[in-house]
Amino acid sequence: MKRSERLVSLMNYFMESPREHTALPVFSEWYGAAKSSISEDLDIVDRVMRGEGIGHLQTLPGASGGVRFIPEFSQENSMTFIRELCDMLEDPERILPGGYLYMSDILGDPKMVGKVGRVLASAFAGADIDVVVTVATKGIPLAYAVASVLNVPVVIVRRDPRVTEGSSVSINYVSGSSRKIQTMVLPKRSLQENANVCIVDDFMKAGGTINGIISLLNEFKANVSAVGVLAEADDEEDERVVDHYKSLVKITDVDGKYQRITVAPGNIVSEW
Amino acid sequence: MKRSERLVSLMNYFMESPREHTALPVFSEWYGAAKSSISEDLDIVDRVMRGEGIGHLQTLPGASGGVRFIPEFSQENSMTFIRELCDMLEDPERILPGGYLYMSDILGDPKMVGKVGRVLASAFAGADIDVVVTVATKGIPLAYAVASVLNVPVVIVRRDPRVTEGSSVSINYVSGSSRKIQTMVLPKRSLQENANVCIVDDFMKAGGTINGIISLLNEFKANVSAVGVLAEADDEEDERVVDHYKSLVKITDVDGKYQRITVAPGNIVSEW
Repeated sequence: MKRSERLVSLMNYFMESPREHTALPVFSEWYGAAKSSISEDLDIVDRVMRGEGIGHLQTLPGASGGVRFIPEFSQENSMTFIRELCDMLEDPERILPGGYLYMSDILGDPKMVGKVGRVLASAFAGADIDVVVTVATKGIPLAYAVASVLNVPVVIVRRDPRVTEGSSVSINYVSGSSRKIQTMVLPKRSLQENANVCIVDDFMKAGGTINGIISLLNEFKANVSAVGVLAEADDEEDERVVDHYKSLVKITDVDGKYQRITVAPGNIVSEW
Repeated sequence: MKRSERLVSLMNYFMESPREHTALPVFSEWYGAAKSSISEDLDIVDRVMRGEGIGHLQTLPGASGGVRFIPEFSQENSMTFIRELCDMLEDPERILPGGYLYMSDILGDPKMVGKVGRVLASAFAGADIDVVVTVATKGIPLAYAVASVLNVPVVIVRRDPRVTEGSSVSINYVSGSSRKIQTMVLPKRSLQENANVCIVDDFMKAGGTINGIISLLNEFKANVSAVGVLAEADDEEDERVVDHYKSLVKITDVDGKYQRITVAPGNIVSEW
């Protein structure tokens, strides 16, 4: 195979296998090329990845001497996307009765969801994460988007037990905004003890739901390494019960009367 | 930019933008390269894609003369994956009380889910599809996997209405296996009338759930172009109420007493 073809094939491989370690001899064998040629190929791939702000190839030292693709969404790419999100969310037609915001179209767009996943996963690139946890239903696509970049599985907390998942652990918690008692359930075999967990959800107000997930995860002796949400609401009435989290956007005001929504970039940009 | 770098960049672009039409002059401008050089680049990319069984570049004629990446999972790749699925599912430890099968680990693995999406999307490549519809909860990751390959949005039918989605249409239907009356809800603004719909779910027994989705979609005057499930159960007692569908695997027997599960490739392979 010629270099030109190898480069296309390598790019496909890395994009399909983020964070997976592959030894150089494996590539040599696949492509029937010398290790030095493969090294030059990898330099080219790495240079383009960095140039486009989509990540880089990490070289792993030692006898096996391999590489892995660390996907990253550059700050520039992330900021462009977050501004686009803010503009979309400020559309007054999104206002629903009760001051809620219609977001299902954004959450239903695989490309948007994929970008949210890349922004969050970039923020968590340094954290130790074994599994992404979310609660049904709206956080699910975002959880998969983050998990596929981090190359870890997804576990879904449910609000009702299902017969098709075997025995499970459940907790009751008080919802932050409605003050109602709610239930959360996780099948016993879905999560190993002492796992490092990243919690992902679509929306956070006071943080009661995420706090509920954390309580449930305590039953599994899990360690919460990261919390990420697409949108947080700036809610002055309720004190936030979750301390460390990242949000892409912050909805500061939903004014049903004057049909006005104010959306700003979330705290994820404040650390850049 | 050199050809070698252009090829890496192009591959990234196509994989991120499946089925999106891009005119050749756009590439020329991006890369500051002659149209003839871009054409040669595209030939190389197309050749590698075909060789690896991941799809091809479709050339669109006319003044704009562009291309788009049609992702396809080759029959060879699909069959390898389906056999792997069958082996995984035949593990007796998956048997749950009531003859159910534990599949949450497979559905929780973004790589597996991505492959299911590619196999189904390849089968539906010729169909006219505007949107992928699924019902909460387990079908959601599969629906996004199919939708991201087809480059269309996802709409999620719920079993309970939510205040955060505005006014909605609901139907009641009889579940095929439990004979219970169940409800399905879809927000009014989530689906336009006369849409061409692909229904995706994780599991189908008699087909009551999918039939329920079809009834609900009738209220939106939708046209069901395709139905795809990960697994179907060969259920002799219940007559199937859905005629045209594709399944990756068929669970023919779950024997709790003798701890034996029999899983075979589904009807998706029968047309190859």
